[in-house]
Order: sequence, then structure tokens, then C-alpha cells
Amino acid sequence: MNDSLIPKRFLLGKKLSNENLEGQLLPKFIALPVFSSDPLSSVAYGPQELLMILTLGGVSFLAFAPGIAAVVVLLLTVIVLSYRKIVEAYPGGGGDYEVAKTNLGDRAALIVASALLLDYVMTVAVSVASGTDNLISAFPQLAAFRVEIAVAFILLLTAVNLRGVKESGVAFAIPTYLFIGSVLLMIGTGVVRLAMGHQLVSPSAHFQVHVYTADLQNATQAAFILLLLRAFASGCSALTGIEAIANGVPAFRAPKIRNAQVTMVLMGATAIVMFIGVTALAIYSNVHYSEDPAQGLIGWHGSGPQLTVMAQIAYAVFGNNSFMFYVIQAGTAAVLLLAANTAFNGFPLLSSVLAKDGFAPKALLTRGDRLVYSNGMFSLMGAALVLMVVYQASVTGLIQLYIIGVFTSFTVGQIGMLKHWRRGKADGSITVKNANSGLFINGLGATLTSIVLVIVTITKFAHGAWLVFIIMPVLYWVMYNTKRYYAEVDKEIALDEKTIFGSKGDYAVVMMDKLNKPQLKALDYALSSRHTEMEAVHIAVDPERAKEFEAEWKAMGIEVPLRIIESPYREFAAPLIEYLTKHRENNGSERISVYLPKFVVGHWWEHVFHNHRANRIRKQLMYVRGVMVTLVPWRLESADKVNLFERRPLPGDARRGDTVRPATRRHARGRNVVSRFQTTRNPDEHEE
Amino acid sequence: MNDSLIPKRFLLGKKLSNENLEGQLLPKFIALPVFSSDPLSSVAYGPQELLMILTLGGVSFLAFAPGIAAVVVLLLTVIVLSYRKIVEAYPGGGGDYEVAKTNLGDRAALIVASALLLDYVMTVAVSVASGTDNLISAFPQLAAFRVEIAVAFILLLTAVNLRGVKESGVAFAIPTYLFIGSVLLMIGTGVVRLAMGHQLVSPSAHFQVHVYTADLQNATQAAFILLLLRAFASGCSALTGIEAIANGVPAFRAPKIRNAQVTMVLMGATAIVMFIGVTALAIYSNVHYSEDPAQGLIGWHGSGPQLTVMAQIAYAVFGNNSFMFYVIQAGTAAVLLLAANTAFNGFPLLSSVLAKDGFAPKALLTRGDRLVYSNGMFSLMGAALVLMVVYQASVTGLIQLYIIGVFTSFTVGQIGMLKHWRRGKADGSITVKNANSGLFINGLGATLTSIVLVIVTITKFAHGAWLVFIIMPVLYWVMYNTKRYYAEVDKEIALDEKTIFGSKGDYAVVMMDKLNKPQLKALDYALSSRHTEMEAVHIAVDPERAKEFEAEWKAMGIEVPLRIIESPYREFAAPLIEYLTKHRENNGSERISVYLPKFVVGHWWEHVFHNHRANRIRKQLMYVRGVMVTLVPWRLESADKVNLFERRPLPGDARRGDTVRPATRRHARGRNVVSRFQTTRNPDEHEE
Repeated sequence: MNDSLIPKRFLLGKKLSNENLEGQLLPKFIALPVFSSDPLSSVAYGPQELLMILTLGGVSFLAFAPGIAAVVVLLLTVIVLSYRKIVEAYPGGGGDYEVAKTNLGDRAALIVASALLLDYVMTVAVSVASGTDNLISAFPQLAAFRVEIAVAFILLLTAVNLRGVKESGVAFAIPTYLFIGSVLLMIGTGVVRLAMGHQLVSPSAHFQVHVYTADLQNATQAAFILLLLRAFASGCSALTGIEAIANGVPAFRAPKIRNAQVTMVLMGATAIVMFIGVTALAIYSNVHYSEDPAQGLIGWHGSGPQLTVMAQIAYAVFGNNSFMFYVIQAGTAAVLLLAANTAFNGFPLLSSVLAKDGFAPKALLTRGDRLVYSNGMFSLMGAALVLMVVYQASVTGLIQLYIIGVFTSFTVGQIGMLKHWRRGKADGSITVKNANSGLFINGLGATLTSIVLVIVTITKFAHGAWLVFIIMPVLYWVMYNTKRYYAEVDKEIALDEKTIFGSKGDYAVVMMDKLNKPQLKALDYALSSRHTEMEAVHIAVDPERAKEFEAEWKAMGIEVPLRIIESPYREFAAPLIEYLTKHRENNGSERISVYLPKFVVGHWWEHVFHNHRANRIRKQLMYVRGVMVTLVPWRLESADKVNLFERRPLPGDARRGDTVRPATRRHARGRNVVSRFQTTRNPDEHEE
Repeated sequence: MNDSLIPKRFLLGKKLSNENLEGQLLPKFIALPVFSSDPLSSVAYGPQELLMILTLGGVSFLAFAPGIAAVVVLLLTVIVLSYRKIVEAYPGGGGDYEVAKTNLGDRAALIVASALLLDYVMTVAVSVASGTDNLISAFPQLAAFRVEIAVAFILLLTAVNLRGVKESGVAFAIPTYLFIGSVLLMIGTGVVRLAMGHQLVSPSAHFQVHVYTADLQNATQAAFILLLLRAFASGCSALTGIEAIANGVPAFRAPKIRNAQVTMVLMGATAIVMFIGVTALAIYSNVHYSEDPAQGLIGWHGSGPQLTVMAQIAYAVFGNNSFMFYVIQAGTAAVLLLAANTAFNGFPLLSSVLAKDGFAPKALLTRGDRLVYSNGMFSLMGAALVLMVVYQASVTGLIQLYIIGVFTSFTVGQIGMLKHWRRGKADGSITVKNANSGLFINGLGATLTSIVLVIVTITKFAHGAWLVFIIMPVLYWVMYNTKRYYAEVDKEIALDEKTIFGSKGDYAVVMMDKLNKPQLKALDYALSSRHTEMEAVHIAVDPERAKEFEAEWKAMGIEVPLRIIESPYREFAAPLIEYLTKHRENNGSERISVYLPKFVVGHWWEHVFHNHRANRIRKQLMYVRGVMVTLVPWRLESADKVNLFERRPLPGDARRGDTVRPATRRHARGRNVVSRFQTTRNPDEHEE
């Protein structure tokens, strides 16, 4: 289908030139919502998953929640500090991928790349699923459409992002600040109410907990520790998305490094306050949350979906159906969509970097006319949609695949940084003080993140994370071989000392099926090219029709020799290819032009009626040596509606069509093709 | 994707030439199973639906079954006789469609065509759904996969039919005769057992019937009659498919008319015996059948699916789990698949006739290389799959859409025949005796079928048949406008006295992006065409890269002028189009050749890596006046694996590749493009 048939300007907004690129860069107060919505929004599911796993062991296990939360907060602090260092050292974007590539080589870089690609997809899937849950907590009657809503959100995000990064930044800043503000207000109100001696009571406070893992009642020490580790691993989902700023430095306004670092610290501080606040309020208000309310919590209404932890806290603090309850739910759902939006910034950027390095198809490298990498966005959309449907938009199901990728890229990135500082220290390009501070911070980061990676893998593998160990190697393999493929092609097409250019022969063939304007136009164009040897060829699919055609040809008095080629199998391309190959054998490796008339239409549905045969013949001819295929278009009237100049807003060029100057002389060779038709109109001007 | 990349010979069997057409014609004993499986197999659901509707009113209503069955048999006899007349008068195939077109004009013909197209789709859907039910009756553990099984059957039928009509005839003859034989044996055994005083007891004999329509208990006369009419309308589903023979006369061996008529009478007689036999045994063995066993029949096990009426009779006559029980179920399922197969003969044939008349896209007219109309088969497959999924393979749901189309085409066809006989009698081309006999039989047919059409519409409309009154008009509208569209195009492209052929000017442009073999080959081919004016054009998407390219170009010493065109919006086609349009404005309506290098690859997945840009540019250029697009292929090594000659079995031509004759001289014009590369290899031979 022709591009210009789609009203895409309407969808995308006006086109932006290269010079607009600077204007699309982000000030800090816009960059914060764009890049920090992911770590901030994970407050909506991180504490929830942490508490859910503990609840599996029985309510008494919730006593361990503050300790585990403290470790998560410590880890978050270390990771933020580590990434400040990465921003400083590698301001070009690409984050962990660039760090790994520069310091550890292609293989490490590809490990990071596969982890990050998966991670971006999971960010979209988990955030959208959680956003949908929060929407459903506010409007339980939507529960029947969970998957449909999640799918619609993904499509909406794709559309918004195809319009470009700045507009999405502005449009998305308000809900993020609304979310931060309302959650902080909720935490503050909760703390004040508790201080005044009020009791906070969540709607699930009095539910009894059904303990799944029976032996936890008389827990062995190993099972006990495993459960705590699993709760910790789940809580770590609050750490996702921190790297987005490091990958997105080029999108910041100057001074880029400083602005990115400040934004990162702001983001880290906010995330810590919210994580601690939400976890604490959840414990104080006795929130009970289960993977499967039908079995996990005894006392669940049975009617309506389970409320998210955020919803239960809002319920406890502000009361059911209160105005603020809805504000919190709206803000949470919105910020989760922004988190998914982070991936729509990061994934296409990373895949364009990968394409530039030859690890991904070149189509991912081209920016669309809104300066965004549209193909990358479509890939992300497709992958997220598949996961959403397969996992039926279940947060708990999706989250199992999530953080292994995150911690893989964290760990490899930090290890790469160690090499960076060591080398800088050795060659003197970095001061000893800076290098040592970097070595300390990134060394701590590498140690902690690799420990967490091990914990996460052990505790999540059997719960679904095994799939990650299939997806990541596949991505690695594909990217590795893409590079190999491009390298082979480059080698194959590179100029060398052996190849002769200087084709010989000049034989032309015009495929003629009927005597009508499009076909005579092709014949006329072929004649005007003054080939040394030329034939019209008719493929005799129907022998009787072929005889008729021969007679018409003769009656017409066209001087070009007509060749009838038998086709007992009713094929068009194969007998022609056979004929051309023989011709070439008899005349050396000559060059052959094949002329094909082709309809050009204005509506997509018209393709149903035309062109299948011409397309098939063209594709097959391209495999024949020495052949080049010339398409001579015949524009049907409907094609006039397609205005190619719509895409170029320069005022001088905005009109279509050139002046009508009927041809008055014939082509140079003087062969009189169709003298009888020469009166007033030139076929190229037939739309007048 | 290139056709030859698919291993389709493996799927389809060897290719058949036009001369094989006669060899594909059917002898009577093969034509019977191919064309009669539809009416014969409807014994599997016709009596079942009849009894089911009566059961709605209560068991006492089953007493009306013999009377209703008798009317159905009478109708069947009349329709068979009517169609014998049609075969005699119109042996060219096309059946009701041809009759309506010849005698009543295009509009009547299109009504018949829309009815028949829907009808063929419904034949596939209903038969496959019923076949699946019978399979599940034998193997209840398959009940969970009802829709999946039905979908698999449709795909299997498509594959079998793509191989061609004769092979499917032979492969399908055995199960039809097995079905006829085993059902006749069942009827015979049942009659003998009854005569010997045995009692036949179906598994549902003792179930109580829950009466849906409460007022039928004290039925008003109108409601009472309506129920009987509805039962009759449902029983009429046994009459479907009779017209298949009339549509398929050309597939019979000579003498075609006689053979088709004999086959039709044989088929009618068999259908009547089986219909009466099955209905009688169902009544004698007290079969109770309900649309929804959970509500309709009190006493249903709850476990396992409801048995079909065929299964219940086989159970009653031969006993549960007996050998013959399984034979009957296998034969019934198989013959129902054959019935669906009938549509795979009829639908593509009809759509090719429609395409020939201009009512359907021309793509439906081309026979594939196995002499079958593949595009028609794919259309049928698609429509049947949609219905199957939407109706979840429910026979009762699907059957509501079924017989309105059948009786529409019956009625219009018979009315057309009346006109045929009357005209033949008037102009003396038909003897008065023959004409009168025709007028009597077809008059009776027209009267009865139009009455049935009214009954069926009234009784089924609210139960789902309303959809038919949307689908048929849409089909009509599409076909009507297809013809109009083709007529407009034909008018637009027809030769006229006003159009001048004799293009002037000879300006060529070669798009150059990098200096590599494919692009130099394109430049070389363009040069060898000796255009009057020629330029290499580089679209400066990246201004720095453009400067580099210009330097490389100069260093190379190529004498062709290089034009750098700015592209601030990173587009390739639009700036080129602007440039060409201006050039044309300055030089009159000249002819422009645009050369595009294009990769040719051997694996489908390689398309991911190449050609997107070339394709987009090509498509947009086709909209520009005076432009023709020349594609210069560069075959990557993988493309060598594509053997175009696989499709042509002639022994002399079966090898690929011509003798390597390195070019020794340069092209005529003598422009030294790339003298430095002239040593040993010609780029056209690069695969050696």
C-alpha cells in the first residue's frame, strides 16, 4: 500500500526537520516525569508483591516486611549512585549497553542488549497490567474487560509516542506530579492519623490467610529463608527503570550530564520516600493481598476483583468512595502508563543504537518524519501485546519475567564501569580521586546487584523466570547473527578489483497481453529508449486468444516484431524466463530490459482488482541474470487523489501536476507505433 | 515473497498442463461421491433438526414427524426432477446462476450468485460442524476441542482440494460408499429387528422433555402451526446440495448431460431411502434430542456431550460400543467432510464464472498450476473459518443461516427455467412436448420452492436468519460494483483517437547512495542504455555523509554528473519527486527513467534486512508523470538457491545458469565508469 494513502499527518502532527531536534530536548521538570515514572510507579506493585509473598507464609511473616523494605531502599540508593557515575562517564546515551560494549566487548554488550530489550517489553507489560488493575480497583464493573483494556492502553501509548517525545513529555507531566503529590498527601495524612491515635483499617484487614506452603507452618530454616529471599526479590521490582535516565542522557537539555544527574537524585529520593511510606501504611492498615483471592484469603467477597494495595491504603486513609480514593487510583493508573511510556522512549533508542552497530535490521535506524524511531515502537508494541494476551494481563504472572533482565544489565554495566575507572586511572585520563570514588561506588553496585541477580534467579526460576533463559539467548543469537549477516553482505557487495562493469548487449522485451493504453504506453516508452534489439512478447496462456492478439497486432501495423511464447502450464513468468535465458545463451552475457505495464491506483481496495500478475512476474524476473525490469505506470483516475506533495509543506511546491504540453513530435527513432492515435492527448497527461 | 520459495510442489503434487483437463473429468461412480455427498450427508442433520424442533413442543409433537418427513421427501423428488431439466437445458455448468442470467438478466443472476456463495460457505460450515459432532459422539473425550477440530478439518479440506478435483474424487469415493452401505445396513437391521418384535431403545429414550414454549402446553392454533412449519423448515436442510450436480456438469465425462442426470436420480433415490429410514428409526427408538441438553432434556447425564441422532440410532440398533456403532460414526463424519468438499468444487467454479462475467476480481479466474481455482478456495476457507469461530462450531446455530440461500437460488432458478421453456416454445427451438413437460415440472418446482422460501424466512428470521438479509445484499452490492469498476477501468484504458503515443525526451536518473557493486551495476546498466541526458542523484538525508559521498565520487573519476539533493525531512522519495517534477516543467512533458538498485534474496527472512527503502521509493515514483522505474537487481549469494526452473519439468531446460562469458568490451557509449575494476568478473555472473 502506498504510504501517502494513510492520513498519517492527522495522527502524527506536523513533520519535523532535523533542525527541530534541539527543540525536542527536555528540561529537567519535564524529564523527571518522562524518565522517572518507571521507578516511581513501581511503588504501585513493588510493595504489593513483597507483601503478597510474605502473606504466603502466613500473617506472622509480615513482621519481616520492614527489614526487607529497608534492604530494598539501601539497594536503590546504591544503584542511583552507581548510575550517576555512568551518566558522568558516558553521556552519549546507550547506558549499560554502551558501557559494556566499550569496556567488555561485543559479547557482553549483546548480553546487556538482550536483557534490556526484554526489560523494556516487560516494563510496558507489567506497568500496563498494573495500571489496568488500579483502574479496575476504582471501577470494578470493568473487571470483565481486563485484557481488552490493557491492549487498548498499549495501542494508545504507541499512538502517543509516534507523535514524538516532547509532546508526550508535556502531556504526561501533569499526571506524574499529580501522582507524586497525591501519594505524598496520602502518606502524610496516614502518618498524622496514626499519630493522632486513629486506626487505619484496610478492606482486607479481617480476612484470614490461607497458607499455601503447608510446611511453612513448621518451617524448616531453609524454606523460611527462601520465602524471605523471594519476598525480597519481588520487592526489588521497585528498582526497575532507574537506568532509563542513563540511557536517555542525549534527550536532556544542556548541561546534559548535570541535568541528568540532578534528575536522577530527585527521582531516587522521591522513590525512597514513597516506597517506605506505602509499605509502612500497608502494614499499619493490615492490608492482606493474595495471588488468588479465591484461595489465598479466606473472607474475600467473591464478588468483584481484588483491590490493589494502593487502593486498599487509599481506602483505609481516605475512606471508601472518597474523592481522594479516586484521585489516588487515577494518579496511579496514569503514572503506570507513563512508566510504560518510558519504554517507548528507551526501546526504540536502544534498537537504533543496535542497528547502527549492525546488531539489528537497518530499518530500526531510520527516524520517521516526527523524529521518532517508528519501527522500534511498532516492535515494542507487538511484543508487549503478545505478552499481555498470553499472560492475560496478570501482574503476578508477568512480574516473574521482569527483574532478571534488569539485574543482568545492572551487573554487567557495573562490571564494565570498574574496567572504565581502572583504565582511566592507569592511562591518567581520569584523576585518581575520581577513579577511586568510581571504583568504590560501582564496585559496591556490582557486588550488590550480582548478589541480587543470583537471589532473583534462584527464587523466581521455577515460578516462570525460566522463560527469560530462553528469550534472552534467542535475542542474543538473533543479534549476533544479524551482525554476521550484514558483514557477509557488505563483503559481498564491496567494490573489488575483479568485477567488470561494462555490460554489453542491449536487448529489450515488452510484455504485451492486450492492446490498450497502458500496454501501448509501455511499448512507446520502450521504443523511445532506442534499444539495439527489441521484441514484443505475448505469453500464450490461452492459444486461441494468442491468435486473436497476433491478428490485432498485425492489423494495428506496429512495426515491432511480435513473439508468441507457448505456456502449456498457464504460467507467465516461467516461459518468459526460459526464453530470455536461451536468448542470453545465444548472445553472450547481454543485458536485457523487460518492460512491464503496471496499474497505479488511488485506493487501497483497488489492489484487490489489479497487479497481482505484474508483481509476480517482476519478482521472478529479478532472479534472472542480466535482466533489469522497467515498470511503466498507468495511473488510473483514482490515483490523482494521491497528493505526493502533501508531505512537503514548502509553499512553492505545494501544488501537484505540471503544465500540460501535448507532445508534438515523435520519439527519435521514428518508429511509428500508433500513428492513428495521434491527435490531442499525451498518455502521461491522461488525468487532465 | 517469491512464489518459488514455497515448497508447494510437495503440497500440491505435480503440475498439470491444459491438455490434462480432459483426464480430470469424472466417471459416474466417482461423480456420485464427489457431488452427492452434500445431499446424502444432510441425512445426518436434517432429521435431527426436524425432531429437535418438534421436541420443543413436547414429546407428543413427535407424532407429526412422519407427516412432515413425507412432505420433505415429496419436495426432494420435485427438486431432483426440476434440476434434471436444468442439466438438460444448461449443460455448461453455472446451474441456477446461468439460468437466471440468461433468462432473467444480471440482477436476478446476482441474487442467485449471492445466495449460492453464502450457501457454499454454509455447506462447509454446517457439514464440518456436524462432522465434528459425530466424531465427538464416538470419542466424547474430544469434546473440549470442538472448535479446534472443526478448524483443522477446514484446513485439511483446503489442502486436499488445492491438489485438484480428480484425486480428491478417488480419495473420497470409498468413505461415501462406506457411509451409504453402513446406513442402509443399519436401516435394514433396524427394520428386521422391529419386525422380529425387538425393541429399539436409544440412550435418550427415557429422558423427560422440558418444554420451552410454555403456551404450547395449551397451544393456540397459530403457535401450533408455527412450530410444525419450523420443524418442516429445519427438515428442509436435508434438501441442500442437490444443485451441486447442475453446477458441476462440465466436470462429468461425456455424455455429460446423460451422466449428470443419471447421477442425480441415483442420488435422489438414495437420499430419500436414507431420510425416511433414519427418521423412522429415530422415532421408533424414541430418540430425544435437544438444542441445549442441560435444559431441554431432563435426565441428561451432565457428563459428556449429547450424542447425535445418528449416534443414538446406531447405539439403539447395534448396541453401545459395538463395531458397527463406530463404523456408522466414522462413515457419517467422513461423508460430512465430503459434503464440505462439494463446496470446494462449487464455490471456486462459481467465482471463476463470476470473475469471467466481471462480477468478481480477476484473480479468481486464473486456474492455478494444478488446474484448480486456488484463490476461490482460499476465499471459501477464510469465510468458513470465520463462521466456525463465531458460531463455535454449533450446528444448530449455523443451520439458521443455511437454507434461505438454497431456496432463494432454487426459486429464482426455477422461475428462469419457466422463461426458458416459454421462449423455446415460442421460437420453436424446443419441441412443444419438451417445453410443456419442462413448464410443468419447473412450474411445480418454482411454486413449491417459493412457498418453502417464505416458510423458512418466517420461521427462521428471528432465530438468526436475519443475518442472511445483511450478508446477501452486501455480496450483491460488492459484485454489482465490481462489474462497474472494471467497466470504468476498461473504458479508461481503451484505445481512443485522442491519445498520442510518441513520448519525447530521454532523461535518466540513477539513485546512488553508496559506492558498492549493486549501485555501480545500476549505474552501468543505465549508461549502457545510452540516454540523451543522465545524472546520478544522491539524496542528502545526512548532509555530512553527502559531502563524503561527493568526494568518493570525484575520487572514483566517474564522468556522470552527480546531483546532491537536500532532504531536511530525511525523506528519500519526496525531494526526488520534487526535483523530477521541476526538471519536467523545464523540459516539457519528457520521459524520465529512474534506476533503482535492488537486492534479491533467497530466504524470506532476508526481506527483514533489505529493500524497504527501495520499495517505498518505487511505489511513490509510480505516481509521478512521465516516470518509469527500472529495477536493477543484485542477487545475493542466497538467491542462487532459488531455482526458477523447478517449475518447468522439461528435461532440456532443467539446469540453471548460462555459460560464463566475461565481458571483454565496454558499452557502446564508451563512458569509462569504473575502469579500475575491469579484470575478470562480470557482475551478472557474480554467483559463479
